[in-house]
Amino acid sequence: MTNIAAYQKGCAFLAAGGGGDIVAGMQARHAIEQNGPVPLIGLDELDDDAVIMACADMGAPLVFIEKVANGGEGDVLRQELERITGQTVSAVMPISIGGSNGLTPVMWAARRGLPIVDCDAMGRAYPMANQTTFQLADVSVSPAVLADERGNSSVLRPLDADWLERMARKLTIEFGGASGVAFPLTSREVRAAAVAGSVSRALGAGVAIEGAVADPVDELCDHVGATRLIQGKVVEVERRIEDGFVFGTLVIEGTGSDRGRVARLDFQNEYLVFFEDGKPVVMVPDILSVLDPATAESMSTERVRYGARCVVVGAPTAPEWWRTPRGLSVGGPAAFGYDFEFTPVEEAMQS
Amino acid sequence: MTNIAAYQKGCAFLAAGGGGDIVAGMQARHAIEQNGPVPLIGLDELDDDAVIMACADMGAPLVFIEKVANGGEGDVLRQELERITGQTVSAVMPISIGGSNGLTPVMWAARRGLPIVDCDAMGRAYPMANQTTFQLADVSVSPAVLADERGNSSVLRPLDADWLERMARKLTIEFGGASGVAFPLTSREVRAAAVAGSVSRALGAGVAIEGAVADPVDELCDHVGATRLIQGKVVEVERRIEDGFVFGTLVIEGTGSDRGRVARLDFQNEYLVFFEDGKPVVMVPDILSVLDPATAESMSTERVRYGARCVVVGAPTAPEWWRTPRGLSVGGPAAFGYDFEFTPVEEAMQS
Repeated sequence: MTNIAAYQKGCAFLAAGGGGDIVAGMQARHAIEQNGPVPLIGLDELDDDAVIMACADMGAPLVFIEKVANGGEGDVLRQELERITGQTVSAVMPISIGGSNGLTPVMWAARRGLPIVDCDAMGRAYPMANQTTFQLADVSVSPAVLADERGNSSVLRPLDADWLERMARKLTIEFGGASGVAFPLTSREVRAAAVAGSVSRALGAGVAIEGAVADPVDELCDHVGATRLIQGKVVEVERRIEDGFVFGTLVIEGTGSDRGRVARLDFQNEYLVFFEDGKPVVMVPDILSVLDPATAESMSTERVRYGARCVVVGAPTAPEWWRTPRGLSVGGPAAFGYDFEFTPVEEAMQS
Repeated sequence: MTNIAAYQKGCAFLAAGGGGDIVAGMQARHAIEQNGPVPLIGLDELDDDAVIMACADMGAPLVFIEKVANGGEGDVLRQELERITGQTVSAVMPISIGGSNGLTPVMWAARRGLPIVDCDAMGRAYPMANQTTFQLADVSVSPAVLADERGNSSVLRPLDADWLERMARKLTIEFGGASGVAFPLTSREVRAAAVAGSVSRALGAGVAIEGAVADPVDELCDHVGATRLIQGKVVEVERRIEDGFVFGTLVIEGTGSDRGRVARLDFQNEYLVFFEDGKPVVMVPDILSVLDPATAESMSTERVRYGARCVVVGAPTAPEWWRTPRGLSVGGPAAFGYDFEFTPVEEAMQS
């Protein structure tokens, strides 16, 4: 992996409105300049018992803009995992491919000269740490390691994913609002519990945007199997911060061939549901992304502003995980308190 | 150790006004009834490399009155220590001999059939987790283990004692305000860094009270080398809770031969300074205790009330640790923001 600029655009798309990619992208680029490129390896390239460090940033994305990690968390996390397992960490994988969480593991891998495994555990970004395919595959969340950029660390052995969220969240707040988190998984566990190909998908999406000769939004949609939902202008943004999440709503009025249409997008860190005429049309676990029509770059829920011209697109992600009954209960509309059933984006746009 | 009733009275005295002994005493007694007596062993009875579990309750004493630990924390702590060290825990020691912290380790030892080592790391109770002889002897606070009564646990590797306090305090609050904490120390480390004889001292103090044929306060004072400071009546109690501590002041008017005298006691969980005529007379690290004149039982800073008849006594504790310049900076008047020098209780009462 050398084209971090393209990878960053792909991570921003798969973030579904989640953010944090800008500083993390600069840091990943810098680490690769200093240490050389990060090899990208497949799920089947490691021995069954090889230890993979599955890792992510933890904290409100807004915090990462101001409290920049120094990169050393990755080493503290790795040392703790090696102490727990008694084995050397062989590779790094992102827990989420979205935004900063897709990029920070690349920085940590570069600094240590480790490869990155072509997978993640969400296929996108989700607001809650327990919305992962690890949970769907019953991979234990204990032990988990937490570290800050100063060198403080903690091995957590929570009873379940809810307690992990509570314990890790409190320590993260005490660390100043940001920390690194990692799990030690074997290659065998990762093969059975991860979304395969996520890093390639992000990289490919970014390359499609960067290499576009015609309309970059069209090129991106072709590459990731996304559907255009509406082209228009943001006429209303309502945003509030609660419990460390960014909640809100966006209203978009159609322009051009979409003139006369009005759509609404609900979000919690990520865009959750696309409504038209009061009816839910496209929704989680499918990815909703708000793109700049000229550059196909993603507008995050924190940064999207009144008056912006945009195209909203929807795309399926990891349907083998997220469209099962259990997947929908953890990452579908019901997981966010909506009382309607999931409709796949492919079907929604046919009617 | 079988006489837990006497030991509990001694722990209450050495708590210097810190509390929590009542529920912890019942639990220790119950554990001994179920599992048999806990052997008390000396500092030199274990091999140099034997692992000792140095442990304590963490949390506001008031919480322990309502949120009773189930006793299982001790096993979770021990399992974590054995995982970290790769060795079997050979014995248990209290980090503080005062109040519940003197008693809970006895309960944990009884449940596991382990001996208790005749020592502690304070020689009394102190409000802050970093006011120990471990700190004076430069014993590392990393790793430390924290567990709740449900089975959640965490191995903390903080940069220093201040970070330990911050990380452990936040997890303790998330656990509902109470947790168990433990360090894995070798017998060699404990010999070099602990206050020897603390458990015997508490037991002896309690036996002196229980076996008194004449005045139990006199018997207690003789046994522990304490000095009577004033006999009187509590005429004012001011108490406030801040940052999880109980801060306040007690005013005592002399009665009998002390009629006409007025004294003031400042406290932060524990009694800190005894003032008379506005002048500091007896102070930390010496133990200040407020006793019932009839029974010599200790009145804690949380429970002492307006109108109570009392005797205030002062006694030295672990002077070899606490009366050194470093000991005074960690546990003397300056550590609590007072700007006067320490005067030993023996000298104070001669003038």
